[in-house]
Amino acid sequence: MSWVALAGGVGGAKFARGLVKIAQQQQQTLHIIVNTGDDFSMHGLAISPDIDTMLYTLSGAANPDTGWGIAEDTFAAHNQLAKLGGESWFWLGDRDLATHIMRTQLLRAGRTLTQVTSYLAQRLGVPNHAQILPMTNDPVATELLSNGAWLAFQEYFVKLRHDVPISAVRFQGIESAQITAEVSAAVAAAEILFFCPSNPLVSIEPILATGAMRALLTAKKNIPRVGVSPIIGGKALKGPADRMMTELGAESSALGVARYYRDILDIFVLDSEDAALQSAVEQETGMRVIVADTVMRNEEDSVRLAEYIIQKL
Amino acid sequence: MSWVALAGGVGGAKFARGLVKIAQQQQQTLHIIVNTGDDFSMHGLAISPDIDTMLYTLSGAANPDTGWGIAEDTFAAHNQLAKLGGESWFWLGDRDLATHIMRTQLLRAGRTLTQVTSYLAQRLGVPNHAQILPMTNDPVATELLSNGAWLAFQEYFVKLRHDVPISAVRFQGIESAQITAEVSAAVAAAEILFFCPSNPLVSIEPILATGAMRALLTAKKNIPRVGVSPIIGGKALKGPADRMMTELGAESSALGVARYYRDILDIFVLDSEDAALQSAVEQETGMRVIVADTVMRNEEDSVRLAEYIIQKL
Repeated sequence: MSWVALAGGVGGAKFARGLVKIAQQQQQTLHIIVNTGDDFSMHGLAISPDIDTMLYTLSGAANPDTGWGIAEDTFAAHNQLAKLGGESWFWLGDRDLATHIMRTQLLRAGRTLTQVTSYLAQRLGVPNHAQILPMTNDPVATELLSNGAWLAFQEYFVKLRHDVPISAVRFQGIESAQITAEVSAAVAAAEILFFCPSNPLVSIEPILATGAMRALLTAKKNIPRVGVSPIIGGKALKGPADRMMTELGAESSALGVARYYRDILDIFVLDSEDAALQSAVEQETGMRVIVADTVMRNEEDSVRLAEYIIQKL
Repeated sequence: MSWVALAGGVGGAKFARGLVKIAQQQQQTLHIIVNTGDDFSMHGLAISPDIDTMLYTLSGAANPDTGWGIAEDTFAAHNQLAKLGGESWFWLGDRDLATHIMRTQLLRAGRTLTQVTSYLAQRLGVPNHAQILPMTNDPVATELLSNGAWLAFQEYFVKLRHDVPISAVRFQGIESAQITAEVSAAVAAAEILFFCPSNPLVSIEPILATGAMRALLTAKKNIPRVGVSPIIGGKALKGPADRMMTELGAESSALGVARYYRDILDIFVLDSEDAALQSAVEQETGMRVIVADTVMRNEEDSVRLAEYIIQKL
């Protein structure tokens, strides 16, 4: 028995946290396939922001105020690196830094990102029935075209605070990247598929674009395949998903997200604020709609939402 | 006008701190050639303990309680690395860690240890007239034979707290290691040569054993060449120099140190506690002796000692 969830960072991790709890109650294994298109190198260290957010959220270490990083972390090394001339726009807490140092060391020793992620999950205390799987062990780099120049994802997202217009997205390396054996096996065994409320364009799309992933999921017609809208009332709860949708020619709404996923998903979860979109989504995409309170302010919200959706499948 | 000092870690840095002040007053350049035989890798990071101690001491950042590390540093990353399964016997403070991260990144980018050290010195605020020079850019690893097994230096010194007997010392890589162009030039221009009160066997000896260093210094007969005893009253102020001397068949005394240096130095500084050894040192080694208060409890002591010795040359 196995569930599979596709996820990016903060929003995805919040929903995954609820799935983890319900999966445990129902003695399911949960495989969370995480975007690695945001991965990058800083100070010579290998950083996987979405995986880290998932690791910290599922182990209970996440900073609840930001969604990223570790709660009550300090920034002594970060400030000293700035003094030594290092870049300082990407905030690395002292405890967070340990993750990147350990990951970099293990990768250099020849371990795969999948192996390293599994090791870190175990050491940090992510429950054993939840497996965090990088979408690929191969390098993929999401880039955004802004005013004629391609920006690395973290440069756009963190350094420029996604405060520039974009006109295109590309995933460098995606042609040769393969999904891992672990991802293949998880998808093959999946009995429910979830798309977490992550950015469709830069969190879920890189996963779908890797190797045979889109074809594998499109073919899984005999299991519930359910997505949760990351956009409520036309706005992203966090990040630039709403503006990116508009800039790339889609509609910044839950309907726009549903259209994006209509070839893969069967069920779509709208926030109760968007209940009026139910018939439009159903008619236009053919998906069944579940209306739920999807805003997750704390772990209880996440568990309640996951439980509610699973009951409705 | 140029002075040259050979040094290891804590004791060497304390004396160098005084030399830096006097060199500034006398408008001298001071080149401090530092042992790199203690260098090692931890968590995949390149660590140069003696260079770091020199950097921190000369920039005023050193922890006065330990002699190593940065004052009031914290250990959040260190503790988290231990939680992630990393080794934790070598204490790396959060701010200290920034040094190792930056060094590792720059070395991987192709810079030499000499270039990296110069960069770090500048960023940390080491005075410009004091140049910290690694003895070599090539890898040299000091190892100690203990109970039939060769131990890496930091394993002996920190992990085992030098609490095991040793029967031999070797410097792995020393056959192919070369002194740098900067070290050669500094020695060629030297008008005074100092051996800081560092461990003769594992701090000064690796420098002398690198490339042509011993021959170059032995040939500098027309300048004052002065060494300060690291052993007072038969005991090392810090570290295992006294026990190592005995274990390796030398005498654990200032006289033993003077014998060790007799082919290179002309002048030897005894602590006033060892004033009774003056005639033995003079007769046996032919060196002129300066008796001084050599215990350096603070920067004022270091400056006073350096000034006193230089006046007596």
